[in-house]
Order: sequence, then structure tokens, then C-alpha cells
Amino acid sequence: MRYYNVEFEPVGRRGKCRDDESVLDCAHRLGVGIVSLCGGRGKFHCCKIRIIKGFVSKPTKSEIEAFSPKELKDGYRLACQTHLRSDCKIQILLESLTTPQRLQLEGIEADVELNPPVKSYNVKLSSPSMSDLRGDDKRIVDELNHQFNLSCQKFDINALKNVSPQLRSRRWEARVFVRDDEIISIGSQRRPGLGLAVDLGTTKIAGYLLDLDSGRTLSSDGVMNPQISYGEDIVSRITYAMESPAKKKKLQEVVVNALNRLTDDLCRKVNVKKEEILEAVIVGNTAMHHLLLDLPVSQLAAFPFVPAVQDSLDVKARDVGLDIAPGAYIHLLPNIAGFVGADHVAMLLATENIWKDEDLVIALDIGTNTEVSLIDNGDITSVSCASGPAFEGAHIKDGMRATNGAIERLQLIGDKVEYQTIGKVPPVGLCGSGILDAIAQLYLAGVISKDGKMKDHRRVRFHNNQKEFVLVDKKENGSLAIAITQKDVREIQLAKGAIRSGIDILLQEKNRSKQEVKKVIIAGAFGSYINITSAVSIGMLPSLPLNRFQQVGNAAGTGAKLALLSVKERLKAETIARRVSYIELAAFPNFEKVFLKATYLG
Amino acid sequence: MRYYNVEFEPVGRRGKCRDDESVLDCAHRLGVGIVSLCGGRGKFHCCKIRIIKGFVSKPTKSEIEAFSPKELKDGYRLACQTHLRSDCKIQILLESLTTPQRLQLEGIEADVELNPPVKSYNVKLSSPSMSDLRGDDKRIVDELNHQFNLSCQKFDINALKNVSPQLRSRRWEARVFVRDDEIISIGSQRRPGLGLAVDLGTTKIAGYLLDLDSGRTLSSDGVMNPQISYGEDIVSRITYAMESPAKKKKLQEVVVNALNRLTDDLCRKVNVKKEEILEAVIVGNTAMHHLLLDLPVSQLAAFPFVPAVQDSLDVKARDVGLDIAPGAYIHLLPNIAGFVGADHVAMLLATENIWKDEDLVIALDIGTNTEVSLIDNGDITSVSCASGPAFEGAHIKDGMRATNGAIERLQLIGDKVEYQTIGKVPPVGLCGSGILDAIAQLYLAGVISKDGKMKDHRRVRFHNNQKEFVLVDKKENGSLAIAITQKDVREIQLAKGAIRSGIDILLQEKNRSKQEVKKVIIAGAFGSYINITSAVSIGMLPSLPLNRFQQVGNAAGTGAKLALLSVKERLKAETIARRVSYIELAAFPNFEKVFLKATYLG
Repeated sequence: MRYYNVEFEPVGRRGKCRDDESVLDCAHRLGVGIVSLCGGRGKFHCCKIRIIKGFVSKPTKSEIEAFSPKELKDGYRLACQTHLRSDCKIQILLESLTTPQRLQLEGIEADVELNPPVKSYNVKLSSPSMSDLRGDDKRIVDELNHQFNLSCQKFDINALKNVSPQLRSRRWEARVFVRDDEIISIGSQRRPGLGLAVDLGTTKIAGYLLDLDSGRTLSSDGVMNPQISYGEDIVSRITYAMESPAKKKKLQEVVVNALNRLTDDLCRKVNVKKEEILEAVIVGNTAMHHLLLDLPVSQLAAFPFVPAVQDSLDVKARDVGLDIAPGAYIHLLPNIAGFVGADHVAMLLATENIWKDEDLVIALDIGTNTEVSLIDNGDITSVSCASGPAFEGAHIKDGMRATNGAIERLQLIGDKVEYQTIGKVPPVGLCGSGILDAIAQLYLAGVISKDGKMKDHRRVRFHNNQKEFVLVDKKENGSLAIAITQKDVREIQLAKGAIRSGIDILLQEKNRSKQEVKKVIIAGAFGSYINITSAVSIGMLPSLPLNRFQQVGNAAGTGAKLALLSVKERLKAETIARRVSYIELAAFPNFEKVFLKATYLG
Repeated sequence: MRYYNVEFEPVGRRGKCRDDESVLDCAHRLGVGIVSLCGGRGKFHCCKIRIIKGFVSKPTKSEIEAFSPKELKDGYRLACQTHLRSDCKIQILLESLTTPQRLQLEGIEADVELNPPVKSYNVKLSSPSMSDLRGDDKRIVDELNHQFNLSCQKFDINALKNVSPQLRSRRWEARVFVRDDEIISIGSQRRPGLGLAVDLGTTKIAGYLLDLDSGRTLSSDGVMNPQISYGEDIVSRITYAMESPAKKKKLQEVVVNALNRLTDDLCRKVNVKKEEILEAVIVGNTAMHHLLLDLPVSQLAAFPFVPAVQDSLDVKARDVGLDIAPGAYIHLLPNIAGFVGADHVAMLLATENIWKDEDLVIALDIGTNTEVSLIDNGDITSVSCASGPAFEGAHIKDGMRATNGAIERLQLIGDKVEYQTIGKVPPVGLCGSGILDAIAQLYLAGVISKDGKMKDHRRVRFHNNQKEFVLVDKKENGSLAIAITQKDVREIQLAKGAIRSGIDILLQEKNRSKQEVKKVIIAGAFGSYINITSAVSIGMLPSLPLNRFQQVGNAAGTGAKLALLSVKERLKAETIARRVSYIELAAFPNFEKVFLKATYLG
């Protein structure tokens, strides 16, 4: 028996692996969450890994079934079938990670040279005397400019409100936080400089608290966007806002409250004060961006759907109501068009190193609204698809958020349904990736036809006036049955049809075929959790070799982090936004035909 | 009988004057208010004028009594004694103008080359189309920068909130208001650009609404500073603010409310909207400045009394709560020291052309707090004197504001009191200039001794445990008697002592004698209304030839106007502020002795 060193990516976990234990067993022993529906029998091909460095056992029969010879040559393997033969570096495919494991990945550091807009300087001042009666403001500005050769001129009014007592209680020593030529805050010399990055989605809000000095993510969290109560998707929310200025203001209020609570939570987790947050970057689609700032939205709903604000924007946090450092700014990345917003810019920014040198790339950010870009040698063309919230569990009978008890992975073997839940507790519903697996499995098993019609099957019953496929019945699961209904199938058809028609129209517009696509970058919480194979099976994504797909997690959030940590990244974002041309799907000549076709499965 | 052309300064009134009517009669006929206590008999020397151009009748006996030969040679005359012998230009001495006439002078235009910080540009934009999907913000910025060769980059968030509906309702034509590189407002192409100048005094607030395009003052108004309820003078207000942050905030709140009401009134008078006010300049002493901005004040009350904010400041009006154009700024001139503020800088700015080429000048701004500067060939040394609100009518038994029924001028002839009221209605009390006249007359008549003690006199009675001199008795004036009490005399002694000790210490510090003083510039509402002769009689001002005194009205308000109309004037103000050195009276070795001596009359 021998021990080898093993390193798991993208989790970053290292440990020892015995030559007689499978990579799957080793991973589980080391606390790395890999999906395993069949319990290590190589049956469901769900524990996909890629050997990046080192030697492993020869492919088993299961692995030869699971992968093409090219893929095997590229290092693709199943974790349950593979044994180490040397020290190894192993990449776990994102689709094979459990949901909790993927959630942890959200904390991965944005890799960027630190150059945050807010810089800090420690100063020691002389105290006032009859021979030196300078005001407190002037005393700081003079010393700062002199000692650090700056040319600060402005002093935020809210920062000024704290200056005099602070200087006196800290014996004329202070840390001064400067943004461009403006002093935005002062504090103790030990005070950290924190930043907040937010991906403000139509359905979910993801927040990250960062240390601007180290670039480290200190804490992260997600909450629902409370605007949902006033409309599930962008169009219904704009419609609500257009009913009256008070209603529009209400939408701003609830989301700002949610951001403030999220900020509180992020700070509490690591025991820091929200007043120490010196800059925030918030990215969202154009409607979320406008509603956050209480900007007019009616022009977003009328042809030709232009944003009120397209350029990047620096706004005092207090002007929005975000309760962080007095004097702090919120930076908002530029929007591309009425329905392709700063979140897509952030996603393109975060994935630039993936697409910049490729011939033809598709980049999608799947959410309640899905933005798709076709990147043709750096020329970017974008569309917006109203995919709706079905993949986030809404409108699906047994749909739920990706939390404990959600079926995250599912496989149909004959009449039997094998599944794995988040937290390995008894199932209570299906999260997005589970729903997608279910539809794909039912389609592949012939239970659902190409046009989405549910056929008869031993597990199909008639319930509440419609057919439904029982995934987990009451006997198996106490009193709680979990099923996929005919209506659920229709919802998924609409959602996937919206996404696929966006992809198809972009390819059609640019006269390229799907085979020419070198990379498909899939961002967004849902997009990162799905089983690519399932998504391809139902035709949501084009059928391409597995290694052309890349799931990048919440890339919009990562883009927000990058913009938080570096002004260079902000400039890069502006450049990217300027390079994008937008196509309005509704204005595309045969859009309805393409969309209808795209709703078909397979 | 011949007619000559006559022009009255500083009123600016022109007309014809017959050779057989006195200048006084002519002035009254033309609606120019000149004080006349004796009804044109040359007895009280109160209708002083100066012939600037032209020939007049020879001096009468009264005029030879009233003026020195040098003064007569310089053109000083009494209006009631003088007849024209050619076309003339006549200056009415400020002290000889009636109060309503002086109030009208407040509207005099600040003479300055227009260069306001906010500039306006009319643009005509192309409307969006599928081939031009730029956002509304970008559409404006692009056009503006291109057409006018600007480099605007910023767009105020509040201004942005109006952009989309405005552009659409105005068929893509707009007037864009730009401050530095920031668009702060947009409106119709006919929208005026207005500005607000405010002199925020401890007791009174004076506001001026200006047209930034022409420099004209459209309306002006004055209100009481409602902070008075929380403390009459600076020190008591600082003390109140130090009791709790809520109390400090309260002081800000009430003054901001007053400013908003004042702004409403100013706008209503000329039928404009407050949203059209694109910039405000507010000047006040350091405490008023700090309380307006809710800045810390406790360091103002502790040695060495330094301001939290000394440099000039641009603050968004909304951050202070001033309700003008969305996006507008308030500019605050620099403060000099804890007790010499931006209002004194404004006063020095407005009077620069008077003092800049003189050898030795004293410039005072008399108010609840009185600032005095000694300008020695351009070197400025300033002190602050806690003169209190007595000259504004407070703490004086029959004191009142300078409004209808206030005795504004008074003379004692034997036992008889001759007086003139504002509005020529029966008297109801004494305004500042009336109080000063009364004390001076009683002192000159020997009713009050040098040390302020009231002696016996036919009109002196014992009332409410103290002596009082009855100026107007019940028989003369229905049931209302008006008197000067012993306590009133003490109040005036303290007030004038504070001012005079400031002047004396400055001269002492700089080793100059009062005879060397070439000009005494007297600013402030009260300072402009007083009879210089009375002020000199009681020793409030040094005894100097009449022509060395110059009353300049609310020069702080004029300075605020200048700063509103021209960024060059702002730079000039900064330069002036930097040139000032401040002397702390309390730290002056023999201050108490000097002060005590200065309280003596004569």
C-alpha cells in the first residue's frame, strides 16, 4: 500500500491518497463534496474529474462508456473508478461538485493586481496651538499632501463630521482614506479598508465583503431580492414601477433595505463594522440598476428600449440609502442596453481571460433574465432572453431553492429514480439542477416527447387535472410525494427555449454554426450547478464536446469583485461595454419561429 | 427759475431740480428718502450729502457749523440748506438715508464680471433608434462635449432621475447645466439659471435670489435665525449643541427649514421655481457655518478654538437639506478662525476695492458677533468681539427690529426729544440706530456720565426698580411710553466696549495709532443704519474725520453674491482668507483692562 499527494481543484484541498482507495473515497474523506448517485459503482457518470497532473489507473469499462477516446486522452475520468499511481493534481468538474461545495467556491479570490479606488494613508499631525490655528480639515489635507505628495482638495461633508472628535480622541493620529482627490473617511490607524461587491439579480442578491488591502473575500452571503413581491420578472417589475412614482420608490426602498441587511450580515460574520466599508460595486441588469437608483424605467419598456443611464456611475452611497462608511461611493459598471446590463459586463470582465484569445465563444449568464453574448474574435454581440424564474424553482410545483433537502442530481434507471439531496437529508423538493436532470432523464427515457408531452408510464399519474411523473412517492418518503408535472415541463420548455433561441439567433446573425463555437461559458448560480449533459440532452445548450463547456459560477459577482479591487478593471469593463453591439430579439425578423423551434426538447 | 439735472447716489435716481428748491425737497419729491429731523431748518445736521459733480449755493451758517472747512471743501453739505447752481451729481451719505431707503439699496448689483460656476448649454439631440441605442445619459454627454468642446464626465444622480422623461416631453431639446465637469441639472431651453446668496447671521438671515445669466438680483428678503430660541449668541448656541448630537442636529434642522422658507419666499416674489436655483453661496460666522453643516463645534469652544472646517467647501445642497435644484451645490467660503468666519471673508471680498490700496484700514462687520480687521498695507489681522445682540434690539427694554414705527433717528434739544420713525408712523420702540442715537444724545447732554450712570433729569423717572429716561411719554404717544433704562445703557456699554476693545487691541498689537487709520469700513445691517457721529460720540468708533468712515451695508451678503456670480471671486476670497492672521482676544495679555476702559462712554 502506498500514499500519494493529491490536490483537488478548484476547491484547493490537499491531502494524501492511498493507492487502494478511489479518488471519490479520498475526496469524501478529505471533505470534498463530489456527487455520487450510484454510490461508487460507475453507473451514472456523475463524478466527473480531470487529471491535470500525474498518473492514474487505466480507464475502466464505465469510464470508456462515459467519455470519448479524445476526452479520456484529455484526462477526463470518473472519480469512483480512478486510483492514483503517482502524486496528482485533480480538477473536479463543476457539474460534479455538490451544491454546498459549489457555494463554498463563491469565496474564491478574484485574481487581480490590487489597485482599489480608495487608498489609505497613516498620518500623525501636530496639535493646534496659538501659533498654528489651522482648521482640522486643513491640518489633515496639508499633512497628507505633503507627506505622500498627493493633491487632495476635497473632503466629504460626512467624513468631516467625524474629523474633530476623532483626531482629539486618537491623539492626532489617523488613517485617512482617499478616493481620487477626495478624502472620504478617516479612522484609527488600525482601521481596515473594506469593500462590498454585490451581484443584484432579479431573483437573488449575492454579496461579498472584501478586504481592500489584501483582496481577500472575508465573507459572502445570498438573499432573495424582495422586489419579487412586486413582480417576478423584469417586465412585471417595470410595469409596477410605471404605475406611480411612489411604487417605483417602493421598489428602491425594499431592495436598499435588503442590501443593508445583507451588509449587516456580512459584517457580523467577520466581526467588522459596516462603517468600515469604503466602496461598493453593485452590478445588476439594467432594470435592477435603474430601480436601485430610482431612475426612470418607462423608456426601458418602450421601443427602442434604451437605458436612462448607460455609462458607469459613481454615486455617494448615502444618495442611494446604502448604509456604509460616511463618504463612501457606490460604483456601477456601464450598462450595454435596456435589457443587457452591468451584470453582463461584469461577467464578461471576469471571464475575459477565457474568451479573449478564442475564435468563437458563447458566454451566457443564466438567471431570471438570461444574457447571451457571442464573441467573435473579440467582437461581442449580445441578446437578452426572458428565461423567467423556472430554473430558480419558481412556477415549478415541487421547485425550491438550492438548500438542504433539495434534489440536486437525479437519474432514471428503468422505473427507479436515483437521486442525491443537498445535505444528504430526505428530499423535500427539486432545485434547478434537479429539475433540469429530471426533464432530461424523462425525455431520454421517452416519458416526455420532443414537443414536451408527457406519455403514460408506471410512475405517471393523473393528479389535480394534469399528468405528473412521481419522482419520489409517499411510501418512499414519509407522506411527501415529489413529482414533475406536465405544466412543469411546459415551464422548462419556455425557459430553455428562450435561452436557446438567443444562442441560435446570435449564430444565425453572425453566420456561424454551432460546431464553430470553441467555448461555452456558463455563468450564474443555476448555470454553475447544472449537469451540462442534461442541458445538452434537452437542447438548452448546443450539442458540443464536453470540454468546450466551462461553468464559471457567479461570474457577475466575480466581475464586481474585480471592479472593487482595481480601477484598471473598471477601465477594462468600460472598454468591454463599448465593444458590445446589442441585438433586440423582438425586432429580429423570424424570432417567433426560432423561439418556437427552440422550445422543442432534444 | 431754472431747472438742472440731478442724479442721486447711491440710490441711482435722476430728475430735474429747480434752482429755488432745496436738494432735500427735490429728493423727497423724487421719492428719495433722506432723514430730516428738523423739517429742513438746518438744525440737526442729519441730511448730509456730498456734491460729487457740479456747482451749488454757498454754505449757510448751519453748514459751516456742521462741517469742517476741509469737509466743506470736499463737498460735504446739508441737503436742506443747499440749492443747485448747475447740473449735479450728489452722494447722500448712508447715515442720512432713511431705513427703507437703505433697505432698497440691498438690491444694488454686485459689480463683477460674470463667470458663475454653473454654465448652461442648449442642445438638440437625435432620438434613439435601432441603429443608435445610446442611453439618455450618454446621448447628452456626447452631444454636449462634441458641440461645445467640453469634457463632461459626471452626471449628478438626482439630475439623471429627470433626464429620460424630460428629453421625451421636450422632443429631445434641453438646456444642460454644467458645473466643472459635472452635469448637475437639465431643463427646458427657456429655463433660467438662478443662484441663491445667503448671509447667515447669528440673529438675522439675509437672502438674495440672483439671475446667473445677467448677475441681476431678482429678489431679496430677511428673516430671523430661528436658532435664537436655543441661544442668543454664538457661545450659548455652541453650548446647547454640545449637550447632545440630537440638539446639535436640531440647530441644523431649524436653520435649514428657515433657509427653505426664505428660498420659497424669494422665488414666489418673482414667480420662479426653487428647482431652478442651480447654486447657493452661504456665508456665516464659523459657528453658524458649522451648525448649518452639522459639523462638530465643541473644539470651537475649547482653547485654541480651531474650526473643524477652515477651507472653502462645495457640498451638495441635498446633503444639507436645502431644497433647490436636484444636483445643485452649496459653496461655502473659507473660515479664518474659530470666531472669524466666512462672512468676514465675504465682507473683505466685497470691500476689497476700498481697502486694497490704503495704508491702514479698519473693517468691521457689526452683528451679534462683531469681526474687526486691521488692514495694514494688505496685511490683514482680525479679531472677534462678542458684542451681543443689543444693537439688534435684543435685551433693550423698548428695542425692536428696524421696521415701521421704530425710532431710527433721534435728537435731544434741551428737554425735548425730536425723532423720526420708519414709515413716519407713531413710534412703538427703538431700532439699533435709534438706541445708539439715544445713548449718544443722553451722554452729550450730560444725562449719562462717562461710566454710564444715569443722572437725574426732568425726563428721568424711577420705574421697575431702575432709572429710565422717557423719550416719548404716554401723553405724547397715546398710552405707549418709550424709554431708555439704566440697564439699556449698561447693555450698550458692553456691546460698544466689545467692539472698541477689538479696534484698540488691533492698533496696539500693530503699533499704530488711530489717527493713522485712513478708512473705517462699517458693514452689517446695524452698522449701515447708524449715525456715525453718535457712534463716535460714545466712543464705539474712534474719533476720526467723517470722510474716513464708509458704511457699506450688508457687505457679507454682497460678498456672497460676488462668489455666486464668479469663480474668480471665490479664488480671490481664498487668497484673502490666507492673508489673514487671527488674534485671540481672550489670550491677549491685558484684554480685560482694555475692555473695561472701552466700556466708558466718550
